Amino acid sequence: MVMKEELVSFLNSEFPQANFIIESVGDKSATIRKTISHEHLRPGGTVSGPVLMEMADVALYVAILNEIGLVALAVTTSLNINFLRKPSAEKDIIAKCKLIKVGKSLVIGEVSIYSEGLLEPVAHAVGTYAIPPASRSQK
Amino acid sequence: MVMKEELVSFLNSEFPQANFIIESVGDKSATIRKTISHEHLRPGGTVSGPVLMEMADVALYVAILNEIGLVALAVTTSLNINFLRKPSAEKDIIAKCKLIKVGKSLVIGEVSIYSEGLLEPVAHAVGTYAIPPASRSQK
Amino acid sequence: MVMKEELVSFLNSEFPQANFIIESVGDKSATIRKTISHEHLRPGGTVSGPVLMEMADVALYVAILNEIGLVALAVTTSLNINFLRKPSAEKDIIAKCKLIKVGKSLVIGEVSIYSEGLLEPVAHAVGTYAIPPASRSQK
Amino acid sequence: MVMKEELVSFLNSEFPQANFIIESVGDKSATIRKTISHEHLRPGGTVSGPVLMEMADVALYVAILNEIGLVALAVTTSLNINFLRKPSAEKDIIAKCKLIKVGKSLVIGEVSIYSEGLLEPVAHAVGTYAIPPASRSQK
Repeated sequence: MVMKEELVSFLNSEFPQANFIIESVGDKSATIRKTISHEHLRPGGTVSGPVLMEMADVALYVAILNEIGLVALAVTTSLNINFLRKPSAEKDIIAKCKLIKVGKSLVIGEVSIYSEGLLEPVAHAVGTYAIPPASRSQK
Repeated sequence: MVMKEELVSFLNSEFPQANFIIESVGDKSATIRKTISHEHLRPGGTVSGPVLMEMADVALYVAILNEIGLVALAVTTSLNINFLRKPSAEKDIIAKCKLIKVGKSLVIGEVSIYSEGLLEPVAHAVGTYAIPPASRSQK
Repeated sequence: MVMKEELVSFLNSEFPQANFIIESVGDKSATIRKTISHEHLRPGGTVSGPVLMEMADVALYVAILNEIGLVALAVTTSLNINFLRKPSAEKDIIAKCKLIKVGKSLVIGEVSIYSEGLLEPVAHAVGTYAIPPASRSQK
Repeated sequence: MVMKEELVSFLNSEFPQANFIIESVGDKSATIRKTISHEHLRPGGTVSGPVLMEMADVALYVAILNEIGLVALAVTTSLNINFLRKPSAEKDIIAKCKLIKVGKSLVIGEVSIYSEGLLEPVAHAVGTYAIPPASRSQK
């Protein structure tokens, strides 16, 4: 596992336009948070689907980097998301990722996404990342 | 089906921040295009996954609106996307949606996503929208 | 919630050819077990994918019936499964379902599937069932 | 590509209990057919979901074998299926697979599943197979 500070600094340099906070990273898991502003909303006063998809994707990426090291070239190969409840327009979005398989070439994780303060998730995703061979052999 | 002009005007008022062009809409289908700029890229000079997911989601929405009428409250219930090839950082992204089921409460479609000029898709998605009961009874 | 005995008797009459045991049903959850025999295997001495998919589908169905009542006509609308590890040819397969949304018309759940005695899941699925309107109004 | 006769003989020896006919195999595609009997039905007189999932999985496998050679150990890593319409209990089920990416380690395809004689598909699936490194290097 890598230090949280290294992870933050790596993500800031690789994804300067991203806009989220790492709440915690741990054993095959990560929690991230995003403050919602007007640009993230859609009609009906709810957070847009693509914002939730991005949060799922990033939470997976953070959990994976923490597990396998700072490999910029890990890439998403698939993402499956179910939208469960209407997110609040006024609350932060929190994404909690748990890796369910860390293989040599594929890593799979699930992500539960919450509006802060609500008990039940607003979305649930399962995603797969491919780990490039070069990164694997360095480990 | 609705007029393309009505659709464009509806989307502009509902999604002012969205940034795409409707190339064509037709019988249970729609093609949209987005010009890629720096904010859409990720390390390695490729278009970020969330941009492709958003294009899949929007292409579905445009095809559905064209089919069932201008229903702002149709909502995505699920999206499954596979990333197939590295998109070009210099080319427009084009998403072609074909609806495979237009039911009373659920509409399902598939979307092939291309970097302009390349023959093979960079991503493929399948998504489901729920149609609110109110909209259905008005039709 | 319904009695486990009622559930078992309903499933036996509706699915006489099915071949599984309900281990437990509870608050938005269900665990089922299947004994693996030669017909469930594929080359390499592992349990075939379709057997795992069926277990995911049935575990969801049992959890849903327990939650909403004995509605034979609830139907699967989608299933997404990831195969994570090679199941053992000699162990029972156990599927644990947890519903993540019980809506009026759609129910969504996730299922972790295990080879008995192994800590890590052999597969993970997310599925959606549609609940027919008639059943809803009876409740 | 391999000869259809070789493919049939390989499948018969590897999957003796399988019960389908290869209608055609071609450039990154395959069509298979299964005759439906009582054991494949569920309440309401329709073909059970797991039978459709198996058809999707097998159609993918046939298309992949035809493309990369007779590799028994190619394994499904994920399958996403949407059930669209009620299949007929009296008609054969036909599954048409088209591969959308044939990579070195992952192959992805989509499958449209029909009740014979009906124009619109009863289900649509997207699946991924992993190709073991040994098979790759032999090619």
